[in-house]
Formats: sequence, C-alpha cells, structure tokens
Amino acid sequence: MSLTIKLHVVPHIIPHTAIRRAPVAAVTNVKLLVGKPIYGANELLPFLYRRTTRSRNMKGAVLPAIKSSLIDPDGGALVDLVVPEGERAGKVSEAEGLPKVKLTKVDVEWVHVVSEGWASPLRGFMREDEYLQSLHFNSLRMEDGKVVNMSLPIVLAIDDGTKESIGSAKDVALLGPDGDVIAILRSIEIYKHNKEERIARTWGTTAPGLPYVEESITQAGNWLIGGDLEVLKTIKYNDGLDHYRLSPKELRKEFDKRGADAVFAFQLRNPVHNGHALLMNDTRRRLLDMGYKNPILLLHPLGGFVKADDVPLDVRMEQHSKVLEDKVLDPETTIVAIFPSPMHYAGPTEVQWHAKARINAGANFYIVGRDPAGMGHPVEKRDLYDPDHGKKVLSMAPGLEKLNILPFRVAAYDTVAKKMAFFDPSRAQDFLFISGTKMRTFAKTGENPPDGFMCPGGWKVLVKYYESLQTEDTKQQKPAAVSA
Amino acid sequence: MSLTIKLHVVPHIIPHTAIRRAPVAAVTNVKLLVGKPIYGANELLPFLYRRTTRSRNMKGAVLPAIKSSLIDPDGGALVDLVVPEGERAGKVSEAEGLPKVKLTKVDVEWVHVVSEGWASPLRGFMREDEYLQSLHFNSLRMEDGKVVNMSLPIVLAIDDGTKESIGSAKDVALLGPDGDVIAILRSIEIYKHNKEERIARTWGTTAPGLPYVEESITQAGNWLIGGDLEVLKTIKYNDGLDHYRLSPKELRKEFDKRGADAVFAFQLRNPVHNGHALLMNDTRRRLLDMGYKNPILLLHPLGGFVKADDVPLDVRMEQHSKVLEDKVLDPETTIVAIFPSPMHYAGPTEVQWHAKARINAGANFYIVGRDPAGMGHPVEKRDLYDPDHGKKVLSMAPGLEKLNILPFRVAAYDTVAKKMAFFDPSRAQDFLFISGTKMRTFAKTGENPPDGFMCPGGWKVLVKYYESLQTEDTKQQKPAAVSA
Repeated sequence: MSLTIKLHVVPHIIPHTAIRRAPVAAVTNVKLLVGKPIYGANELLPFLYRRTTRSRNMKGAVLPAIKSSLIDPDGGALVDLVVPEGERAGKVSEAEGLPKVKLTKVDVEWVHVVSEGWASPLRGFMREDEYLQSLHFNSLRMEDGKVVNMSLPIVLAIDDGTKESIGSAKDVALLGPDGDVIAILRSIEIYKHNKEERIARTWGTTAPGLPYVEESITQAGNWLIGGDLEVLKTIKYNDGLDHYRLSPKELRKEFDKRGADAVFAFQLRNPVHNGHALLMNDTRRRLLDMGYKNPILLLHPLGGFVKADDVPLDVRMEQHSKVLEDKVLDPETTIVAIFPSPMHYAGPTEVQWHAKARINAGANFYIVGRDPAGMGHPVEKRDLYDPDHGKKVLSMAPGLEKLNILPFRVAAYDTVAKKMAFFDPSRAQDFLFISGTKMRTFAKTGENPPDGFMCPGGWKVLVKYYESLQTEDTKQQKPAAVSA
Repeated sequence: MSLTIKLHVVPHIIPHTAIRRAPVAAVTNVKLLVGKPIYGANELLPFLYRRTTRSRNMKGAVLPAIKSSLIDPDGGALVDLVVPEGERAGKVSEAEGLPKVKLTKVDVEWVHVVSEGWASPLRGFMREDEYLQSLHFNSLRMEDGKVVNMSLPIVLAIDDGTKESIGSAKDVALLGPDGDVIAILRSIEIYKHNKEERIARTWGTTAPGLPYVEESITQAGNWLIGGDLEVLKTIKYNDGLDHYRLSPKELRKEFDKRGADAVFAFQLRNPVHNGHALLMNDTRRRLLDMGYKNPILLLHPLGGFVKADDVPLDVRMEQHSKVLEDKVLDPETTIVAIFPSPMHYAGPTEVQWHAKARINAGANFYIVGRDPAGMGHPVEKRDLYDPDHGKKVLSMAPGLEKLNILPFRVAAYDTVAKKMAFFDPSRAQDFLFISGTKMRTFAKTGENPPDGFMCPGGWKVLVKYYESLQTEDTKQQKPAAVSA
C-alpha cells in the first residue's frame, strides 16, 4: 500500500538549561516502514524547556489592564492602533487630502494584524531599519536595548507611480481593495524593495512557486513604504466568521475570565483530527502535572492568505466547531479563535512569527511539530525545510526566551487499538499516517476513515467540502484543446 | 570621459542613543556627475555612535593575560586551540588511528581562523545548533544567555563517502591538502548541508557566480561536520608573509606594548591610496579630539581566499609596506597585519564577521565604508547589495553593541587641490574617483595617476604587478579555435 505520510505528534516537555547537541546522524536514519524519516525518541532531546519569566516593562510604556497571571506582551504593552471613535471623523476627512496607497487583500490582512498588536511592539509597516533587522536577525532591538522577536518583514510595497504621486508627503492614506479609506500611515519612509534578497533571506530559496511570493511579492512594486499606522476602524471581513476574530486584547480578557494560569497555543491550518486532540489533551494533562491549576487551550487556526490547495477557512471553522460540539476537545478549557495573519510557508523563519504573535495574545506555551509552516520544495522533490529545523530554530530564537516551547511526540492511527495513539517504533507496522491527500481520497470514494480517526461531525463537514470540490472539478472539465 | 567609480570615504562620529530613521528617499537621489549614486550629508545620520562598554566576563571563563585597557574578546576569553608543545606527539599518534577528513585550502584557512580565536567563543567547526543560529540570527547565544555576533557559518563539508568512513566515530583527524595531520575534531556531529538554503540565507541570492560559493560550496559534500578543534601546530603558509600573520593574542600584546588606549581597525583587500590614508589619519585625529591619548591603527588586509581579479596578497603587502616606508601612514601608530579569513563577498552579512573578528583582536573602533564586502551582482547589472546596508546592518547587529562603528565620509581626488580630500557636493565636478579598473588602465598605458593619489613607492609596486598581468595576458593569447 502506498500512503502519503503526515505526522501527528504529541508534546513532550524536557527540562534543560543549555543548548544540547542533537545526535542528528542517529535520528536521520530512523525511518517509518513506508520510507519517510520520522522522529525517534532521540530527537526530543535538543529542545529547551524554558521557565516562564516575566519581561520587565519598557520604560515609559503604558500597561494595558491585563491580569498579572498572563505573560507580558512583547515590549511590555499591547499595541492597539485603531483610532478611538471620537477621533475618527476628523482623521477620515484628513485622509481624503493625503496621497493614496491602494492595498491588496494581503496588505489589509497585515494592517489588521499590526493594528491589533499581534506584532507588538511594531506600530506600522516596517521602515528600513526594522526591515533590515527582521531580515538579518529575525528580531528587533528596542530603544531600551531589549530584543523582541520579529522574523517576517511586515512591509508594504508600492510601485514607481505611487512613489512619485507621494512625492515628499509625510503621511499617506491607505485604501482597501474597494477604495475605502482604511488607515493613515504617518512619518513615512520609502526605500528599495530588493525582492530577490527579501525572498532569499526569508525563505532560504529563490525557487519559483512559493505561494506567498507569487501572491504578494513578484508582482508587487519596487519600493517599500514604512510608517506608523492609524487604523480608522476595526478591520471586518463580513464573511460570517468575524466573531471568531478575537484580538489579542479580547483573548487576554477571555483567558482572564476563565481564570487561566497557563495558556497553550496550537497553530494550525488543517482540519482537527483525533491525533491533534490527543496531543492537546495530553498537553493539558502534562501542564496539570506540572502544577498549573487551569491551563487553557488556544486552538488558533490561521485565517489569512493560504495556498490554493489548503482547506478554506470557513470549512475549517465549521469542522473545528464540530470537534468542540462532539466534546473531542473540552469547550470549557478551549478557546477557538482565528489568527488573522497571512501564511508565508517560510518554515523555521515563519514559525517564530507564529509563536511570537501568540505571546502577544497571552500564550506562554507553544506547541510545535514536525516541519512547522513548511511545504514541499516548489521545484525539487523534497521538503523545502529540514523537518527538525523549525522547532530547533524556535527553541533558540532571540526574543522568545520567555515562551515555553512544547515539541511534539509522534502520534498516528493505531490499527490495533483502533484510535489515534503515540507512535511506538517497536510495532511500527500497526500505525497508519493519514494525510490530507488520503482524507480527500476517502471522501471521494465515499469511504470512511478508520474508526477513531476523526469525530463523525467533523468528518461530515470535510466530506461535504471534498464533494463540492469534485463537483467543481467536473464543472471545469471542458473539452481539451488540441495542442499544435 | 567615462570612469568606473570607487568611493573613498572618511569616518564621521555621531552621538546617538536610538536607531534613527534615515531619510533614504532623499539620499538615493543624490548622484555624482558621472551618474552613480553616492552619499550625501544626510546618509550619515542613521548610524549609532556606541560608547565603549566592557562586556562582563563569562562566569567561570579564564581571562587571558591582557591589559584591561583593551576591549574584552567575545565570550570574555580569547579562544586558543593550538595544542601545547608537550601534548603534540601524543595527539599526532592518536590522530593516526582516527577516521580522516581531507581539508581544502579554504578549510585550512578556517582552521587557522578558529584556532587563534578570531571567532571566539567558537571552538571548532559549527555543530547544527550553532549553524542554525548563525544562519537565522547572525549570532550565537552562550550558555549564560549572552549573545555574541557570528554572521557567517563556519562549517566543514564532507561527502557521502567520508561520512560513511567516519561511521560512529566520536573524533576525526583533519588532514591538510598535502595529507599532513593538522588537527583533531572532537565530539563530532554530522548534519545535512542544505547548500541552497545556506547560500540564500548568507548571500541573499542564489544566483550562479558567487566566488566563495563556486570555490567552496557548489562542489562540496552534502554533509557538514561540526566539533571541537584541537590544532596540532600553528598554521603556517611559508609564503614569506607569515610574520604578518599576527594572532589576536599577538596583536593584543603589541597594542599593549605600544600603550594603546583605543584601537581602530581598517579591513581592506585593495591597495592603500591617499584617500584611505586621509581617512585613517583623520580617524586618529578625531579619536585624539575625543580624549584618547594614543589611538593605534590596525591596518588589516584580508589574507585568505579572494576572487581571481583581486590584487594578490603578496603584492598588497608589498604595497602596504611602501605606504608605511613613505610615511603616508605613521609607522609609530600603525600596525600592519594579515587577517587570515577567506572572503565571502557576502556584504552586510560578512561585514559583521569582519568587525566581530577585530573585537577579538582588541579593536574597539571599526571603520566601515560604502558597500563593505560587496561586489557586483553575478548575473544582473547592479551592486549585489544596497551600498548603505552594510553599515546599517553593522550598526544594529546583535553582539556588536560594544564596538564603536565609524561610518565613512566620502573622499575622492580633488583635481583643484591636487590631493585626496573630502568630497564636496557643491563642487562635485572637481572630484575624481579612481577605481581598481582605472588604476589598471593607468598602469597598462604607462600613465601615472594624478599627483597625490598614491605614494610613489606604493604605485611602483602596482605598476610592476599590472605589467606582470599584461605579460600573463600576452602569454595566454593563443590562436583562437574556430567555433563550429
């Protein structure tokens, strides 16, 4: 039988005081029966267990009204760039007189992300100093000398014509794709957009076919414009999912309301199956063992740009809500919300962003698995990133010292126990790895996945989605043109 | 007249407490008459002036016997990996029984560099944790949490056959290109050499034609081997220049002997002309103005691998010695020595290495100019790096906070004053920029450069070299094959 393999893994917490040397040669030789390398017990060793420490507040920073039990946001205070209601009308009429910059859909997602403080202490699109630090060091040094993580350049590209129209203006108005004024960018700085260098340093490749690059960089302008954002009203998508889009401030409030003394975040962009659930429930149990009284899970699907073959957000959200309805995850100790960032598929570089943003939302534990934010190499037949590098890089990243990194232990479908379970290398033949491709095949053929793979309610959502894809496929099957 | 332009610049020290925003748009519009963008007065603003602070010693680190007036080496103590005489015989015979790894010429240069502590606190070729930190963060976190700069991966590549021959051995012997045992590498770790990712993250491009990549990466093996170095004897090149190869320890001793209270380093890989001299003499004057009593210049040409069209080391050293003989630089306050590192031509990434290594040699001031460690894009008709990025990145680099960065002010040949002088934009037409290409043309045609461009002794050395090149060229002019 030929299977596409997907690894599902379970967190494992290891006390550690220094960066250990991993016996990598040993690990890379461990292979599943079906031929793909997986993690052995050895691979769990090199990670740091970090104690939760409080970052001291920035000199002069105003602290938001959060309970002291939650981790401090980066920079000490949560950034909130939405203009207060009372000032709005004045700013809107000011914006009308400013040079205009039209945003793409992805640009708006970044405005949303920055305005709510996910990227705290960043207060707008990056100026060149910030861009260079992000690109070269994956971090920003603040005025007080402290370092915060910032691995992805959050930048706004403009073309030559727009640059010319801005001239020597100090501020510009940002327009949404529909032409509505969304924000003002203050004290702007325009600098060169060296796309090749940005791509190479962010993705570690310049191969054609990187989804975010094709969506947002290749066709973008040759200049970047940085500045401080003032967002004229909260970004809404009106897609029936806005109630899931909790800001870091709202999440912190919710964690406080539930009396959380630990928050563990799980980033995903796929349907939740029982392997994920095993992992999350096991994490909670471990946190209770560690002495926490009420660990809360932040189940945090990414809601911005994803590549065409990922399951769409609305389907994922419906599937996630079934998982909670079916009590596979405990609704009392789980918060499901949307993380509004677009996806880069930049592996070890991006996973830092995913973790850092969750600190700002109040999470002090972050679950990281195999090949986070990774994908296949767009040109070569291999993973773009070493599947181990994501969590290694995350465990050593500047500015993330206060975050507890929880690396996964492998889980898969145990065909004997008929449920998702920790992978046991001594009886590897009993385990089945079920990928998205495999799920799609099941749905296509009307076959059910093995009992215990996913709760029935969640599976039904996926079947409906995959069926709709088939219908789409059929619709699109037009007579093929005869090639010359 | 068509001229290739080379910028010569003079340091300028600006007090500053935070990262300023550069008015880049203004700067990029400043152009020389001959059409290439250069620096205006504005471009001097964004740099940090850093006060010399002492890094505290690592807990438990043994301090070398250096005078307290010199800056501490990274990690608090200078690494010295050369095995003491008395232990040598034993180690050599041990090495004979170990698996062997054959080094290239460039690998030996790295052994040299690491063994003398230029890369302190690094004690060998990087293991994967160090490699990943260098690649992603341009820095290494030490066990005590402190961060040191380390922007270039210092790694050793091996091929599949060598990996197999090593098997599960813990230590290997490193052989020079002639087969002599040079060092033992202890507690090794072997991990994948993802060349594409290494190149992309180090150079910000994967374009073919990068000199170091072609010399040392493309043909190298698919594995990297890290470990702790024990070097069996001091590396010598027997090229008549070894007396110039002072180790960081020897340099520190020399600075102490001369009673230096400030050391300013000048990295170069080109002949010294009077523009450089102006710059260096002016820097000394400024340091005296700042209150230093005896600033010493470290004139520090790079001695390792350089690309084929750079002037060879022996010629450069002869030229530099003439410059001191002719008293263009004061021999009393100048030390000329060879920096044994190979050249990456990796611009903003590499300039950090150049600066960091000089901290270890005792320099607390580092002079940085336009496009440091840069070159033309190997494929496109442009500089590979933004000429401003090197000093910007250097001024913000983690682990270099204790170093004072001295950005250049532009100098060029003033055709009115008939000497090298600070460039004055108000009479740009009076200034002449003389590049290596231009110098070569002068030498070819037997023409002298303008009076005051370079001391006569130094110029004579170059004429001889360029003449020898012409002879070479003539020799190589064989009848061309008729193409089919």
